[in-house]
Amino acid sequence: MRVLDAAFWSPGSSRHALAGPLGFSASKAKALVAGLIDQGLLEEAGTQPSQGGRPAETLRLHHGLGLLLGVDIGVTSLTVAVLRPDLTLLAQHSEDIDVRRQGPGVVLARAAALMRELLARCKGRAEQVLGIGVGVPGPVNFEAGQLVSPPLMPDWDRFSIRDFLRDDYRAPVFVDNDVNLMALGELWRLQRALPNFIVVKIGTGIGCGIVCHGSVYRGATGSAGDVGHISVDHEGPRCHCGNRGCVEAMAAGPAIVRMATEAAEAGESPVLAAALAERGSLAAEDVGSASRAGDAAANRILQHAGHLVGQMLAAVVNFFNPSHVLLGGGITQVGPLFLAAVRQSVYQRSLALSTRQLEVQYAPLGAQGGVVGAGALAMSETLRVRGVAP
Amino acid sequence: MRVLDAAFWSPGSSRHALAGPLGFSASKAKALVAGLIDQGLLEEAGTQPSQGGRPAETLRLHHGLGLLLGVDIGVTSLTVAVLRPDLTLLAQHSEDIDVRRQGPGVVLARAAALMRELLARCKGRAEQVLGIGVGVPGPVNFEAGQLVSPPLMPDWDRFSIRDFLRDDYRAPVFVDNDVNLMALGELWRLQRALPNFIVVKIGTGIGCGIVCHGSVYRGATGSAGDVGHISVDHEGPRCHCGNRGCVEAMAAGPAIVRMATEAAEAGESPVLAAALAERGSLAAEDVGSASRAGDAAANRILQHAGHLVGQMLAAVVNFFNPSHVLLGGGITQVGPLFLAAVRQSVYQRSLALSTRQLEVQYAPLGAQGGVVGAGALAMSETLRVRGVAP
Repeated sequence: MRVLDAAFWSPGSSRHALAGPLGFSASKAKALVAGLIDQGLLEEAGTQPSQGGRPAETLRLHHGLGLLLGVDIGVTSLTVAVLRPDLTLLAQHSEDIDVRRQGPGVVLARAAALMRELLARCKGRAEQVLGIGVGVPGPVNFEAGQLVSPPLMPDWDRFSIRDFLRDDYRAPVFVDNDVNLMALGELWRLQRALPNFIVVKIGTGIGCGIVCHGSVYRGATGSAGDVGHISVDHEGPRCHCGNRGCVEAMAAGPAIVRMATEAAEAGESPVLAAALAERGSLAAEDVGSASRAGDAAANRILQHAGHLVGQMLAAVVNFFNPSHVLLGGGITQVGPLFLAAVRQSVYQRSLALSTRQLEVQYAPLGAQGGVVGAGALAMSETLRVRGVAP
Repeated sequence: MRVLDAAFWSPGSSRHALAGPLGFSASKAKALVAGLIDQGLLEEAGTQPSQGGRPAETLRLHHGLGLLLGVDIGVTSLTVAVLRPDLTLLAQHSEDIDVRRQGPGVVLARAAALMRELLARCKGRAEQVLGIGVGVPGPVNFEAGQLVSPPLMPDWDRFSIRDFLRDDYRAPVFVDNDVNLMALGELWRLQRALPNFIVVKIGTGIGCGIVCHGSVYRGATGSAGDVGHISVDHEGPRCHCGNRGCVEAMAAGPAIVRMATEAAEAGESPVLAAALAERGSLAAEDVGSASRAGDAAANRILQHAGHLVGQMLAAVVNFFNPSHVLLGGGITQVGPLFLAAVRQSVYQRSLALSTRQLEVQYAPLGAQGGVVGAGALAMSETLRVRGVAP
C-alpha cells in the first residue's frame, strides 16, 4: 500500500515509476495499481509525453478519496484552504489577524468558520474531509498537536489546537510549525528530489524550516530552525528574548517599519513621509514600493536588512551546507533588492565550498507555501496513520 | 543479513534484541543467528544479567572475521590503530605530524608503515584486514575518497588517499572528514540511541560532525559542519579565509597560544613566562596546566576562548536544536574552565526551548574518538558494500 504514498509524493508518475522503486516486479506493480484503481484510491490522469514507445498512463490519488483542509496561521495573517488529495487548491481565503493580541479561541473559531464556508463554497461536506493540517508561528510538540512556550503568543501555550478543530470533523488534525510546513510544501513540490535544503520565513519574526536526509527535521525538542534569535551584532539593540542583536529584532518586518518611520520623520524620504502622513503608520510593503520607485532611503533600509539576514544565513550555510536557501514570508513582497542583499552577504561570508552550488532564491510556492504545506501534512500524515506509508 | 549490521551497532545484544526490530519472528531469528554462527560471522559473548528468566546469550561480530585499520589524520597528529570487528582496540600509535607542511605522500607513507608495524605487533596479516577507515582534517568527497579544496592543506586537494592505501591490502578504503568520524564513533558508542547531536572538534581548527535523523549528515556538497568560519566578531581579526572574526581565528589552539604568549611577554603570567623562557614557545597544554595551577591570565584566556566558542555554538543550537553538544580535540585537555565557559555562553545566548534538555560535555570517547570512528566507518561501510546493510 506504499504505492498510495508514492502517488502522493510523485503525482503524474506512471505505474512503473510508482511501483518500481518499491521493489515490485512489473507484473506485480500492474496488478497492485489495478487493485487500487478498482478500490477508488488511485485514478488515471492522462498520458505522459511519449518517448518513442506507447505513452505511459499517469496516476494520481483519486479525487473521490475526499478533501483536505489546510490552515496557515501566521503572526498577522490567517489563510484557510480546501485542497484535493493531489493538493490542487479548490478554495482559499486569507485575512489579517494578530495572534499577539487574539487568543487561540478567537483565532481558531474564525478558522473553523472559514473551513465551513470554504467547504460549502466548493460543495464539500464535513464527512468528505480526509485530514486537516494546521501551521502555527511557534515551536510545536508535534505528537501532542500543541504549541510549546511560543515567545510571541503566550496565551497559546499548550492549548490543544487538535481538540478544538477535531470536533466538527471525523478527520485527524495535524499541527506543525508554520515554517516546517513551508519546507514540507516545497519538498512535495520538488517530489522529494532535493534532500537537504532550508526555507526561511521573514515576516513579523524570522524562522527556518529544515529538510535533512529527505525529510523535515524538527530537532531534539521540536525547536530546530529558530534562527530569529541568532545574534548578528553583539552591541545591537536588546531583543524581547533578553539577548542583544538578534537578527529578528534588527531585520524582520517590524524593524524594517521602524527604520522606514525614522527615515520618513528625519526627512530622508519624501515617498515614505507621504505614505506616513496619509495613513499614520507604515508597513513593510510601503518600503517595497518606495524601493521600486527608486527611493534611496528605502533601498538603504532593504539592503541593510538583507545584509543582516544574509549574515545570519552565512552561519547556517557554513554549518548545514544546504543545496538551496528558499526565502518566504511577507518580506518576499518587497522586491528584488532585499534578495540581492541577502545573496551578497551569504556568498561573501560563507565558505566557498558551501556556496559553490548553493542557490538562494524566493520560495517558489510563495504565499501558497503555508497552505500547500498544511495540505501536504494532512495528506501524508493521514496516509501514515492509516498504515499505508513508512 | 541485516542481523550482522545490527550486531555491529548493538554489541552485547541477545538474539531476540538483534533480530526483533528487523521484523523476524522468534523462531526465524533463532535460525538466522544459528546460521550466522555456523558461518563464523557471529559468536556468543557471554550472558546478559538475568532479569528473572533464563539469562540470554549475547552476540557480537565474530573475532575471526578479520581486522580493521583505523587512521586518524589531524592537522598536527597522526593516529593509527588495529581494531577487532567489534571495535576493541588491539594496538594503537600516535605521533606528531604537520599536514600544513607535509604533503600527502609523506604522511600517508608514514601511516602505511605504522599500519604494517601495528598489524605485525598484534600478529595480524594483511589478508586478514577487512576494511580501512581514514579521517582527514578537511572537506571530503566521500564517494571519491578524496579531500576537496582543504583550506589548511592545499597539497592534498583531490589526492587519492584511497588508491594510495589500497595497494597493500585487498580491503576497501573509506575516507571521511575527521570530525564526521568522531560523530560516527560516538553514534556507535551510543548504539544509535541519540538521533540528533553534534560533535565539535577544537584543535588547530574548529569543525563539527553532525548526526541527524540517526545518521551522519555530510551536507549537500560534503562541507556540512564547517563552523570554524562562523563569525563571532565582525570587527575581529582577519582570518586566512578572508573574512573577519571567524571563531577559528579567535579561539582555536593557535589563538590560545598567541594570547598566552602575549600574556607571558606582557608580564601578566609568571607561570606562562617561565614555560616560554624554558622552551622558546608555548602550547595550548601550557595554558591548561597554568590554569589548573590557578594562573589568572591562563584562566582569563581559556574563559575568553570558551565564551567565543559558546557564542558560535549558540547559533548552531538555535538552528539545529541538538540533544547533545560533545566537545573533542586537543582543547579538551586544557581542563574544566574552558568547558564551563562554553556552557555558560551557550545557555545564555540560545533560546530556552533549545537548551532545556541540552547537554554540553566533553566527548566520552575522548582522544580515541578519531580511530574508533575510523574503525566504525571501516566496519559499517564494509558491511554495506558487501550487501548486508541498508
